[in-house]
Amino acid sequence: MPTNRRFLLQRRPDGTPVKDDFELVTVETPALEEGQFLIRNHYASLDPAMRGWMDAEGNYMPPIPLGDPVRASTIGVVEESRAEGFAPGQWVMGLNALEDYSIGTVGGFTQPIDPSLVPSVTNYLSIFGAVGMTAYFGFLEVCEPKAGETVLVTGAAGAVGSLVGQLAKIHGCRAVGIAGGPAKCARLIEKYGFDTAIDYRGKDEAALTAAIAEACPDGVDVIFENVGGIILDAGLMNLNLHSRVGLCGLISEYNTEPRGIRNLWQLIVKRAHIRGLLVADYVPRFGEGAQQMGVWAAQGKLTIDEHIDEGLEHAFDSFMRLFAGTNDGKMILKIA
Amino acid sequence: MPTNRRFLLQRRPDGTPVKDDFELVTVETPALEEGQFLIRNHYASLDPAMRGWMDAEGNYMPPIPLGDPVRASTIGVVEESRAEGFAPGQWVMGLNALEDYSIGTVGGFTQPIDPSLVPSVTNYLSIFGAVGMTAYFGFLEVCEPKAGETVLVTGAAGAVGSLVGQLAKIHGCRAVGIAGGPAKCARLIEKYGFDTAIDYRGKDEAALTAAIAEACPDGVDVIFENVGGIILDAGLMNLNLHSRVGLCGLISEYNTEPRGIRNLWQLIVKRAHIRGLLVADYVPRFGEGAQQMGVWAAQGKLTIDEHIDEGLEHAFDSFMRLFAGTNDGKMILKIA
Repeated sequence: MPTNRRFLLQRRPDGTPVKDDFELVTVETPALEEGQFLIRNHYASLDPAMRGWMDAEGNYMPPIPLGDPVRASTIGVVEESRAEGFAPGQWVMGLNALEDYSIGTVGGFTQPIDPSLVPSVTNYLSIFGAVGMTAYFGFLEVCEPKAGETVLVTGAAGAVGSLVGQLAKIHGCRAVGIAGGPAKCARLIEKYGFDTAIDYRGKDEAALTAAIAEACPDGVDVIFENVGGIILDAGLMNLNLHSRVGLCGLISEYNTEPRGIRNLWQLIVKRAHIRGLLVADYVPRFGEGAQQMGVWAAQGKLTIDEHIDEGLEHAFDSFMRLFAGTNDGKMILKIA
Repeated sequence: MPTNRRFLLQRRPDGTPVKDDFELVTVETPALEEGQFLIRNHYASLDPAMRGWMDAEGNYMPPIPLGDPVRASTIGVVEESRAEGFAPGQWVMGLNALEDYSIGTVGGFTQPIDPSLVPSVTNYLSIFGAVGMTAYFGFLEVCEPKAGETVLVTGAAGAVGSLVGQLAKIHGCRAVGIAGGPAKCARLIEKYGFDTAIDYRGKDEAALTAAIAEACPDGVDVIFENVGGIILDAGLMNLNLHSRVGLCGLISEYNTEPRGIRNLWQLIVKRAHIRGLLVADYVPRFGEGAQQMGVWAAQGKLTIDEHIDEGLEHAFDSFMRLFAGTNDGKMILKIA
C-alpha cells in the first residue's frame, strides 16, 4: 500500500485558525478490508462550513476528532478495491478528507461519477456539487423568487452567491450583489450578470443600508444570506412586505464571536421570515438539480469560476482564502 | 361640547420613557363635522407596541406626531353623532387615543360592538381584541403547532403569552412558559395550565439554555417569541429540526439598543425559521377568531386576566407596568 499524506486537525482553532492548529503527516495506508476500496484523491472542496466542523460543538455535522484529517468533499479515482461496484480506475466523489488516499466503503457517502458528462471533472465540486445544489435548491425552493422581484445576494462573489445571482437573472429577477472590493463588484456585473453591485468595504451599517436602498429602489423581496453581521442587518432594513431571507451561511461570524443581529424587529414590521437552509436535505433530488443546472450551463446561462490551488501542502493557505476573500470562484485544492 | 383631557406625546422618549415625555392637557372638543361622531372613551388598551409608535422612525404604524395624544385602542360610547350608523348610546371600539373623547369617522377604524355578547365589555380589548387575535392567528397560523409538540412561550405571563399557552394545551401540545419571578411562574401553571414554567430572573444565557433543555426534554418545536435578547438566543439553542419561531414582539429591546441575536446559525443547523407576525393582517378574519375564542372561553378552556388601572391621569404609570412586568394580565386603563 502507498504512503499517505494527511492534513490533520491537531488543535481546535481559537477564533481564526492558525497554521499550528494543523499538521501534515505521512503515514502508512492500512490494508483494505472486505467491502472497502482505496481512493486516490485528485481534488478536494474547501468550504466555509468546514470551519464549524473544527469546533468542539460541531454544527450540522459532528466535530472532526482531534488527530483526524480535516473532513472534506473530494473527487478521485479508485486505485484498489475489495468492494463490489467500485473497480480500479472508477472516478468517485464523496465526503472524505484532506489526504492523498481515502478509504471508501460500500453504502458510504462515496458515489461513482462520470467525467465524460462535464467540461471538467472539478465541476462535480462546483456547479454539480454541494455549491451548485445549495444555490439551486436553497434559492429556488427556500426563497421562492418570482419574476420582477429584487434579489439581494450577500457574499455574492463567492461560489454559491455567484450562482444565485445568475439563477435570479434566469428567473427574471433584479439581482443585486454585495461583495468586497471593486474587482469583485466588477466581476459580479460583467461575468455573472448582476444588475448592480455594492462594495461593502469601508461602509458601516448606515452606509450599507443606504447603499442597498439606492441599489434596490423597489425594496428587497429576497435576501440570499451568506455573511451575517452588519450586512444582514442592513439588508433587513430594506425588506419589503412578505419578503424572504434564505439563511445559507454567516461567514462573518465563523472566526469571531457574533456581533448579533439587531434588526429582527423588521421581520414583524414586514411580516417577513428568515429560514435556514442546508443542502444535505436535498440529496435525494440532486439528480434533478444537476440536470437543470447542466442545461443552463450548456445554454451559456451559467458561469462558474473555480479557483484551483495545487498541493496538499498548501491546504491551510488555500482554506484561509475563504475568509480573506482572496479566492476568485469555488475554492478547490488539487491533490494529484 | 365637553372639555377633553388628552394625554399628549410631547417629546420622543430616549430609551425608557419618562414622565416628562408626556403631558395631560385639557382642551375644548371641536364641533363635529358631517360624517363624524363623538366617542366617550371608557377603556383604553395599553400595549408594548405603543412604545414603537413614540419613536421618530415608527414601526408598522407611522410615528405619533409630537403634540398629539398617544394612539391607543379604546372602547367607548357614542355621545353625539353626525354620522349614519353611529347613534348616541352605541358602544364602539377603535384605534383612537388616550383621551376622554375621541372623534370617529364613518369608514374609519371604529366599529360597533355589543357588550351583551361578552362577560365584560373590556373583553373586547383582551380576548376578543388584538391580544386574543394575535394569540389565535399568530400561534395557530404562523407557528402551525401539531399535537404532541413542545411549545415554548416567552413573555408567557403577558396578555398574549398566557393565551398562547392555553391554546397550545387545547391543541395537545406541551406548553412551557418563561416569565419573571416565582409568582408569575406559579400563575402560568396553576391558572393557565402550562406544563412547566421557567423563571428567567437571575439567569444568564447559559443558565437559560440549560433550564429550557431541562423543561423541554424532547426539544422545542415552536417558540412563540415576545421578548428577544438572551431569552430568544437560549430558545434557539434548543430548537428541533424543522421547528418554527413566531416572532410577535421583542419587548426586551423596546427601551434599549438591542443586544443582538447571536444564535441565528441554529436556524441553518435545524433548518428552522423565524417569521414575523402582525395581527393587523388578520382583521378580515377577526370574526372567525373571536367566535372560536368565545367558544373555548365559554367551555372554560381559556382564562384571560385583565389588569385594569383607573384614571387617565395615571396613564404613564400604567403604561410603564408593561416594561416593569408589574401587570397581572392584559393592561387596560379605565377612563370613565
